[in-house]
Amino acid sequence: MKAYISGKARLGRNIVIEGDAVILGPTNIGEGSRIGLYVIIGYPVKAKATATRSLEQLDEASSGASIGPGSIIRSHTVIYEDTFLGGNVETGHHVLIREKTIVGDGTKIGSGTIIDGDTRIGRNVSIQSSVYIPPRSIIGDRVFLGPRAVVTNDKYPASRRLLGVTIEDDAVIGANAVLISGVRIGRRAVVAAGAVVTKDVPDNAVVAGVPAKIIGDRGVYDEKKRSYEEEAL
Amino acid sequence: MKAYISGKARLGRNIVIEGDAVILGPTNIGEGSRIGLYVIIGYPVKAKATATRSLEQLDEASSGASIGPGSIIRSHTVIYEDTFLGGNVETGHHVLIREKTIVGDGTKIGSGTIIDGDTRIGRNVSIQSSVYIPPRSIIGDRVFLGPRAVVTNDKYPASRRLLGVTIEDDAVIGANAVLISGVRIGRRAVVAAGAVVTKDVPDNAVVAGVPAKIIGDRGVYDEKKRSYEEEAL
Amino acid sequence: MKAYISGKARLGRNIVIEGDAVILGPTNIGEGSRIGLYVIIGYPVKAKATATRSLEQLDEASSGASIGPGSIIRSHTVIYEDTFLGGNVETGHHVLIREKTIVGDGTKIGSGTIIDGDTRIGRNVSIQSSVYIPPRSIIGDRVFLGPRAVVTNDKYPASRRLLGVTIEDDAVIGANAVLISGVRIGRRAVVAAGAVVTKDVPDNAVVAGVPAKIIGDRGVYDEKKRSYEEEAL
Repeated sequence: MKAYISGKARLGRNIVIEGDAVILGPTNIGEGSRIGLYVIIGYPVKAKATATRSLEQLDEASSGASIGPGSIIRSHTVIYEDTFLGGNVETGHHVLIREKTIVGDGTKIGSGTIIDGDTRIGRNVSIQSSVYIPPRSIIGDRVFLGPRAVVTNDKYPASRRLLGVTIEDDAVIGANAVLISGVRIGRRAVVAAGAVVTKDVPDNAVVAGVPAKIIGDRGVYDEKKRSYEEEAL
Repeated sequence: MKAYISGKARLGRNIVIEGDAVILGPTNIGEGSRIGLYVIIGYPVKAKATATRSLEQLDEASSGASIGPGSIIRSHTVIYEDTFLGGNVETGHHVLIREKTIVGDGTKIGSGTIIDGDTRIGRNVSIQSSVYIPPRSIIGDRVFLGPRAVVTNDKYPASRRLLGVTIEDDAVIGANAVLISGVRIGRRAVVAAGAVVTKDVPDNAVVAGVPAKIIGDRGVYDEKKRSYEEEAL
Repeated sequence: MKAYISGKARLGRNIVIEGDAVILGPTNIGEGSRIGLYVIIGYPVKAKATATRSLEQLDEASSGASIGPGSIIRSHTVIYEDTFLGGNVETGHHVLIREKTIVGDGTKIGSGTIIDGDTRIGRNVSIQSSVYIPPRSIIGDRVFLGPRAVVTNDKYPASRRLLGVTIEDDAVIGANAVLISGVRIGRRAVVAAGAVVTKDVPDNAVVAGVPAKIIGDRGVYDEKKRSYEEEAL
C-alpha cells in the first residue's frame, strides 16, 4: 500500500495519493489533485523504458508528465511521460494515455478509454467510457465522444502513412461510431451512434448509417433535444 | 502483497483474498467468496471521495458494497459503494461496477465490462467481455449480452435528460450491437451482432442491421439453433 | 513494490521485473524479457483456482505460462497458465490472455485486448487496441486486426456449440469490424472498418458494410495504398 514517488516529482499542495501507485521522473502534480490506487504516471516511451533494468532506472529515464491542479486520476490508470493534462481534468478507471498527449482544462476521460499518444484534445471535452483515440487526432473544445466511439488513423492498414482525424469544436460523436482516418468532423456536427464516417462531415450536419450520410442539421437536432428535455419536466 | 481490509468489513467464512487488494467501509463479503489481486471494493462516490485525504479516510467515508456468497471478483476489478451483488456472481478481470448497481444471483460479468452505476441486472444474466451498461439500464433475468454490446442512455448527447434501456427476460443481444437510449428489448427478443437498435423490439422478434429491422422470430431462431447444435453431434 | 515470484519460475538472464507483479507456478520467462507493474502471469483456470485458499496455493496449483525471449508484458496485464507466447511478443497495458493460447514470435497485442483462451495466433500479427478474440479462433501470420475489432464464436447465443473464426495469413481486419462465428477470412482479404462479416470472405477480396459485401480486391487496395503513401512524400 505504499506509493513509489520519484524524488524528482514536484507535488503541489494538498494532493492526495490514495495508496499504492507509481509516479516517475520530474512529474508535476498540481495543487489539490488526487491519484488513485495502482496508477502509473510518467512511464517512459519504449526506447527509453527498454534500456532500464529497475524501477529506479525507469524513474531516472522518465521525462515526467504534468497533471494540472484539481485533477482526479482514478485507479489502474497509466499516463506516459511528456503528457500534459490541464486543470480539473478527470480520468475514469483503467484509462491509458500515452506520450505527447495534451488535454485541456476541464476535460473528462471515461473509464477504459485509450488515448494512444501524440494527440491534442481541447477544453471541457466529454470523453465517455471505452473510447479509442489514436495518434495524430485533433479534438476541439466541448466535443462529446459517446461510449466506445472509435477514431482511426490508418486508411489502408497497416500503412506507413498515418493520417489523423480532426473533430472541430462542439461536435457530438455517438456511441460506437467509427471515424475513418483523415476525416474532418465539422463544428457542431453530429455523428449518430453506430455510424461509420468515411467522408468529411460539414459544420452543423447530422450524419448516420454505414457509410454515414447526411440526415439532418444541428438546428433541428437542438430543437428536438429541447422538446425531448422538456417532455421530462 | 498485503491487502487493506477495512475494520468495518464483514467477511463471511472461508473467503479468500488472493493478495494485494483494497476493501473499504462496511463491505459485506459472503461465505466462500474470492477476491482477486489489485481489486478495490467499496470505493466511495466522487462527492465523498474528494473530501478525503488518505486511504483511511476513504475507508471511513465508504458505505461499503455487498458481495453475495460464493462469488468471484477477479483481478483489477473496481466495485463502488452501495452496490449489491447476489450470490454466485462472477466478474472477469478489469471490470468496473459503479455505485447503486444491483446484480442478481448467478450473473456473470465478463472481463473489461463497465457497469456505470444506478442499474438493475437480473439473475443468471450472461454479460460477455467488454460490454458497456450506463446508468438507468434495467436488465431482466437470463439475458445474454454478447461481447462489446453497448447500451446507451442519452438520446441527444449531451442531454440533461437520461433515459435508460430496458432489456426484458431471456433476450439475446449480439456482439457489438448498440441499443439506443430509451428502447425496450422485448422478452425473448434477439438483436443480431452489429445491429443498431433505434426503436422498441417486440417480444420474440429477431432484429438486425443499421438501423435494426425485424428479420424473423424467436421460434425460428430456436429451431435453427437446435439444428445447428445437432450438426455437431 | 515487491513482486511475488514463484520458487518454481524459470527466469532467463537479464529479465526485468519493474516492481509489484505476481508470477505463478513453473512459468518460464525468456532471456531479456520485461514484466510491467501489477501484472499477473500463470493464473490458474477456474476449477484449479477456486480450490486454493492463498497466493501460495495458487502458485502451487498453477501449471505456469511461457513467455519467449525479448518479450514485453506491460502493466496491469493478466496471462493465464498454459499460455505460450513466442519471442519478441509485446502486450500493451490492461491486456487479458486466458489459458491455452499460443502466440507466435513477433506478435504485438494492443492495450485493452482480450484473448479469451484456447486460441492460436501466428507470427508477426498486429493486434491493435481493445480487440476481442474468443476461444477457438485461429489467426494466421502477419494478420492485422484494427482497434476494437470483435471476433465471435457463438452463432446462436448462448449455444452449447461454439464455432471459431479462421483468419488466414496477411488478412486485414478494419477497426470495429465484427466477424461472425464460423466465418473464414481468406488470405490477404480485407475487411473494412465497421463491417459485419456474416459469410466467408474469399482470398484477396475486400468487403465492407452491414452485412459485409465484396467491394473490391486486394490488388486494387494495394495499388491505392501505394498511391496514398506516395502522396505524402
